[in-house]
Amino acid sequence: MTQQAAVQQPNLLNGLDVQAAVETIGAIQEDESLARFQFRARNTWITGGVNLSSIKDFYGAGREDDSRSESFEFTNGEPPVLLGDNEGANPVEFLLHALAGCVTTTLVLHATARGITIEELSTELEGDLDVRGLLALDDGVSPGYERIRIGMKVKADCSDEQLADLIAFTQAHSPVCNTVCRPVPVEIVRMAN
Amino acid sequence: MTQQAAVQQPNLLNGLDVQAAVETIGAIQEDESLARFQFRARNTWITGGVNLSSIKDFYGAGREDDSRSESFEFTNGEPPVLLGDNEGANPVEFLLHALAGCVTTTLVLHATARGITIEELSTELEGDLDVRGLLALDDGVSPGYERIRIGMKVKADCSDEQLADLIAFTQAHSPVCNTVCRPVPVEIVRMAN
Repeated sequence: MTQQAAVQQPNLLNGLDVQAAVETIGAIQEDESLARFQFRARNTWITGGVNLSSIKDFYGAGREDDSRSESFEFTNGEPPVLLGDNEGANPVEFLLHALAGCVTTTLVLHATARGITIEELSTELEGDLDVRGLLALDDGVSPGYERIRIGMKVKADCSDEQLADLIAFTQAHSPVCNTVCRPVPVEIVRMAN
Repeated sequence: MTQQAAVQQPNLLNGLDVQAAVETIGAIQEDESLARFQFRARNTWITGGVNLSSIKDFYGAGREDDSRSESFEFTNGEPPVLLGDNEGANPVEFLLHALAGCVTTTLVLHATARGITIEELSTELEGDLDVRGLLALDDGVSPGYERIRIGMKVKADCSDEQLADLIAFTQAHSPVCNTVCRPVPVEIVRMAN
């Protein structure tokens, strides 16, 4: 391989471009404002428990992102027992998908930073919820999840102790996990039609 | 219309079957155990920031649900600025989709309970996040959302005061909103491969 080819070939670990990651972290350390992101979603109600989200633009790394030519579109629905017709997964299920993805990506990112190769990684999530909260049948019952359990299977080229440390670090640094574990303020403002 | 036809025709308000809703609430008031739900997701890492969730089964209303013949499948990805190739929306964006859907469905449900007709309903969400938390560059920065704003447009056959009350009630009773606003315990347990 010529030296030029070697320069052009990204140094991938766990599918991540290590050099790009190092450069991103270096740029943020030089200019903290590059770390500020704003993510967005637009949602339209259709009928009953059916509504559609469109996700495309966001702000990050100092500018409006323009990398997406099309929006991602997702449908929330409800199963028959919750008065729907399975038009889509329901919102509390999408929350589990978000959480699963976030702990996975966070673990892979920090494994890469530590030089650990991940061979396999999968999760199974269970969230317990009492719908008396949603239905306002009992003020003592929280409407949200009572607790969420993540069962994680990982194969990696490190010791069990290193893996346990990586999992604990992941739990502490995953944005969605942190958003769920920590009280995050949500403000609803009515806009003019 | 004959009386038999009237019985067979569901009484829909905002696309929800009012009689079914009343029966569901009545059944839960008779037997609180019917209110207990467990939602689930299974996720498999592919490479880098790409992973896939499968969502199908759940427990609720006293039994394992069997209404879905196929799984819902969702892909998490990342944009180039976060080392991906826009393989899917990213996990913190899916969280906004879940939140948008949940406040929407919760509002429609409680509007229906109050006899309010919703004519139009849409939301725009913005969530602020500093990636120094995720990257472990500053222990003083939370990895999750700092705050989330929901701009809501609603047209309904009620007064502005009734609508403001409905929105406040929605915020207090939406399961995803409550999961975000309240500290919810998340446990990660390593499973045998």
